[in-house]
Amino acid sequence: MTLQLALTLDPESRLPLALQIRDSLRKLMEDGTLWPGTRIPSSRQLAVDIGVSRSVVVEAYEQLVAEGYLRTRHGSGTTVAEHAGTPDSASRLIPPDPEPAPEAMWDLRTGTSNVVDFPRQEWIRCMTAVVADASRQELGYSPPAGVPQTRRVLTGYLGRVRGVRSRPEDVMVTAGFAQGLALICRVLLDRGHTTLAVEDPGHPGEREFVTSSGLKVVGIPVDGDGLRVDLLERSRVRAVLLTPANQFPTGVRLAAERRERLIAWAREVGGYIIEDDFDSAFLHRSDRLPALQSLAPDRVVYAGSASKTLAPALRLGWLAAPSELMASVEYVRAGWDIGCSGLEQLAFARFIDTGALDRHQRQLRTELHRRRQTVRRQVEACLPGARLTGGDSGLQAYVELPAHIDEKALLRAARRRSVLTRGGAFYTLTDTTRRPALVLSYATVTCAGLNQSLPALGEAYREAGG
Amino acid sequence: MTLQLALTLDPESRLPLALQIRDSLRKLMEDGTLWPGTRIPSSRQLAVDIGVSRSVVVEAYEQLVAEGYLRTRHGSGTTVAEHAGTPDSASRLIPPDPEPAPEAMWDLRTGTSNVVDFPRQEWIRCMTAVVADASRQELGYSPPAGVPQTRRVLTGYLGRVRGVRSRPEDVMVTAGFAQGLALICRVLLDRGHTTLAVEDPGHPGEREFVTSSGLKVVGIPVDGDGLRVDLLERSRVRAVLLTPANQFPTGVRLAAERRERLIAWAREVGGYIIEDDFDSAFLHRSDRLPALQSLAPDRVVYAGSASKTLAPALRLGWLAAPSELMASVEYVRAGWDIGCSGLEQLAFARFIDTGALDRHQRQLRTELHRRRQTVRRQVEACLPGARLTGGDSGLQAYVELPAHIDEKALLRAARRRSVLTRGGAFYTLTDTTRRPALVLSYATVTCAGLNQSLPALGEAYREAGG
Repeated sequence: MTLQLALTLDPESRLPLALQIRDSLRKLMEDGTLWPGTRIPSSRQLAVDIGVSRSVVVEAYEQLVAEGYLRTRHGSGTTVAEHAGTPDSASRLIPPDPEPAPEAMWDLRTGTSNVVDFPRQEWIRCMTAVVADASRQELGYSPPAGVPQTRRVLTGYLGRVRGVRSRPEDVMVTAGFAQGLALICRVLLDRGHTTLAVEDPGHPGEREFVTSSGLKVVGIPVDGDGLRVDLLERSRVRAVLLTPANQFPTGVRLAAERRERLIAWAREVGGYIIEDDFDSAFLHRSDRLPALQSLAPDRVVYAGSASKTLAPALRLGWLAAPSELMASVEYVRAGWDIGCSGLEQLAFARFIDTGALDRHQRQLRTELHRRRQTVRRQVEACLPGARLTGGDSGLQAYVELPAHIDEKALLRAARRRSVLTRGGAFYTLTDTTRRPALVLSYATVTCAGLNQSLPALGEAYREAGG
Repeated sequence: MTLQLALTLDPESRLPLALQIRDSLRKLMEDGTLWPGTRIPSSRQLAVDIGVSRSVVVEAYEQLVAEGYLRTRHGSGTTVAEHAGTPDSASRLIPPDPEPAPEAMWDLRTGTSNVVDFPRQEWIRCMTAVVADASRQELGYSPPAGVPQTRRVLTGYLGRVRGVRSRPEDVMVTAGFAQGLALICRVLLDRGHTTLAVEDPGHPGEREFVTSSGLKVVGIPVDGDGLRVDLLERSRVRAVLLTPANQFPTGVRLAAERRERLIAWAREVGGYIIEDDFDSAFLHRSDRLPALQSLAPDRVVYAGSASKTLAPALRLGWLAAPSELMASVEYVRAGWDIGCSGLEQLAFARFIDTGALDRHQRQLRTELHRRRQTVRRQVEACLPGARLTGGDSGLQAYVELPAHIDEKALLRAARRRSVLTRGGAFYTLTDTTRRPALVLSYATVTCAGLNQSLPALGEAYREAGG
C-alpha cells in the first residue's frame, strides 16, 4: 500500500530536518487537515517521497508518537491519534530543556538512557517464565516494600557487585530512584530536617525534586577529589545526597580520606548520607571501589535503579537503608501506594538470578568505555585547551574549557551545527568559581556518531574563540 | 529424588491441617533444624508421607513462600530461604485480620481476588508484543500520569463500558486504586478539607488508609437504597468516597433519585464525589447503570483498578478527574514518583485493545453470577431467617441475620468448622442500628466449595442459636 502525504519543507530553514518534519505534521493535525484515525505513510515511504534519510523520518514519527499525535500499531501502520496532541505534564526529575523544542541531529544532553540495547528477548524470557509460574500469593498483594523474593535477590546482588551490607528486610523496591528519593526526603522532613546538602555541580532535576518535597537544598562545591567534606562540616546541614562512585556530572571519585571523613561527619551530627549509585554498573575496573554504604550501613542510605542499565520505562529502583530509617520509610510508603508491579519485580529477580543482568551490563560497560575513549580522543583533537575531568567511567564527559570561552555562545554555535549539549552552568547551583565547561553525554550516541558530532562541536568551539 | 522430612503433627489439634503444617515447618526453620538453602520435599511427596491431601501441603508451602520462609524455583524445587522468616510490613489497604494466624479449609473473607483464572497466556502474549515493539520513547521516561497510549485506550474503554465522560489528559494511570486514593486525599488536604465522608458499613482498610493521610473519616449510614444522602447533607463534610454501583459490602445500588441528590449536594457545597468503581466488571446486567461520573464529570472523581479482574500484583489502577482537580493530582504525583511501569501500562492497553479484557471479564462475570446464586440458595437452605441484601452482582454476599444472633459466637463456631468469614461489625464504623450480619466472599471459592462450606456454616449458625 502506498499512501501519499502532502508535506512542505522550507528549503531555507536551518532547523534540523527531523524537527521540520515533526512541526509540519503537527500543524496538519492541529488544523484538522489530518483527521484522527487517518493512516499516514510508513517512515520508509515518506523518506523516499521527500528525499531524506529514513532515520530522520523515524525520529520525527517517534517524537510525535511520544507526544500523543501519532499512533503506531503492529500490522496496521501509523495513524493520527484520536486526540492528537494531548499535552502531558513533565516531571521535575526529567531535566527541563533550557530552550523550547530542541531537536537536532546529535543529542549529547544528559538524562537519557541507552534503551537501544535493551535486552528485549532476555526480558521477555524472564517475564514469560514469571507469569507462567507465579503462585497465587505472587499474583496477589505483596508487601509495599517489595516482593520478598526480589528483595532477597537484590540484597545478594548488591552485596556481590557493590559490597552493600544489608538484609532483605532493609531493602525496598521503589518505583525508580525518584520514589526512593521522595520517600527519604519525606522521612527527613518528618524527623525535623529542613535542609539537604547536594553536590555543586549536580543534577538540576534532582535539586528541583528535593526542593518540591519541602527541603531546602544547600550546594556543596565539588573539586577533583569529589565533595568538599570540609565545607559540608561547616554547613550545619545534617543530611547529604551525593554520587560518590562517579560524581555527576564531573566524573570524579570521592577520595578515600574524604569517604572516611564524610562518615565521621554523619556519625558526629547524627545525620544521613544518601548514596546515589545511579551509574555504578558502568564503573570501569580502574574506578571501582565498594559502595560507601559498606563502610557505614548505619548511616548511609544506598539508592540505585534499573533506568540506566535497562530502561527507565521499567520504573524499578531500590533503597538499602539503616533498619531504624527503613521502618519510617515503609510507614510513609504504605500511605502512598502498596508497592510496584509484583510481576515486574519477579521478572527482575529472575533477570539477576539467571546472570542476564551481569552479562548485559558487561556488554554496555565495554561499549561505554569505548565511547568515552572516543570522546577523550576527539576532545583532545578538536577542542584544544579543553580538559576532560574524572576517570574512565560513566555516561557523560565533563569537559573543562579555558576561562575566556563563553559557554552560552558555544552552545548556540553547536546548536547551529545540529549538536545539542549543555554547559557547566546548567548543572551549577551557586558555586561561582568554576571554569566554563561542556557536559557531553554519550549514553545514546555511538562511536560513529561521536566521531561526527565532536568535530562539528570543535568547529563551534573555534567560532566561540576556542 | 525423594527427600525426607521429619514433621510431627498433633492428632489432637483442632487447627486446620495446612496451618499445622505451616507452623511445624516454620518452627523447624526458626530453631535452625532446617538450615537456609536446604531443599525440602515436594508438596506431592510430603502429602504422601504424612497422609494428607496435596492441596493442604500446597497451601502451607505457598503461605511460607509468601512469608519469606521458603523459596520455590522452577526446576530446583523448594528450599529454605536464606533469611527464613523475614517479617514484612503489611499495608493498611490490605484488610487486617481480626485474629492472628487465621488459616482454614474455607476462606470466605473479603479482600482477595480470583487470581486462579488470571489469563496468563493472553497476558504473556500482550507483554511479549509490547516488549518486542516498544519504541525508544516507550522504553524511556513517560509522563508520571501515564503512557499516552494507555491513557487513550483507557479513556475509550471506560467510556464504552461504564459511560465515563473524560479525556485522556484527565485520566491518570496509578499504582493501583490505593495510590489514586492517596493522591486524592492529599489534594483534598491541600485544599483545606479536613474530613471525608465514607459509607457505613464500608471497607475498614480504606478507612484506615484515609485516616493515615490526615483526613478524618465521617461515616454515613447505608440503607437499602445506598448511602443516606440526607444524612450526608447534614454532615458539613464536602467530599465523599462511595461505591454507588454496588455498595461494599452490602451489595445495594445507589437509587436513581439519590444519585441526582448526591450530585446536587456536591454542586451546592462545591465538593467532590469519589466514585470507587472497584468491582463494576462484575455487575450483572440487571444491576448495570452508567457510572455516576457520567452525570457530573465536573464533580466526580472516578477510580478503578485491575486488581479484581486481573491480579493485585499488577498494581494497575486509574483515575478520571475533573481537569482542575487533575492538575493538582498530577502536581502531587510528580513529587512522589514518575509513574508506573511503562511496559506494563502498554501491555494493559494492548490487553484492552485486543478485546482480551472484555472476554476475560465476561467469563468471570458468568462464573461469579453462578457462585452468587449458589450462595443465595445455600443461605436460604442452611441459614433460615437470614436474608441476602442487594442485587445479583459483586464478589461478596451480605447476609443479614435475625437480631438475636451473636455475631462473634457465630464466627467462632464457623471457625471451628474450618470456615473463615467476617461479621457485619468488621465493616461497621459507628452505625449502631444495623442487625447482625455475615459477609461471605465468593471471589476465591468455587461453587463446589460453596456447596461444602455453607452447610458447615449453617451448622455453626444453628449452634449460635439460628
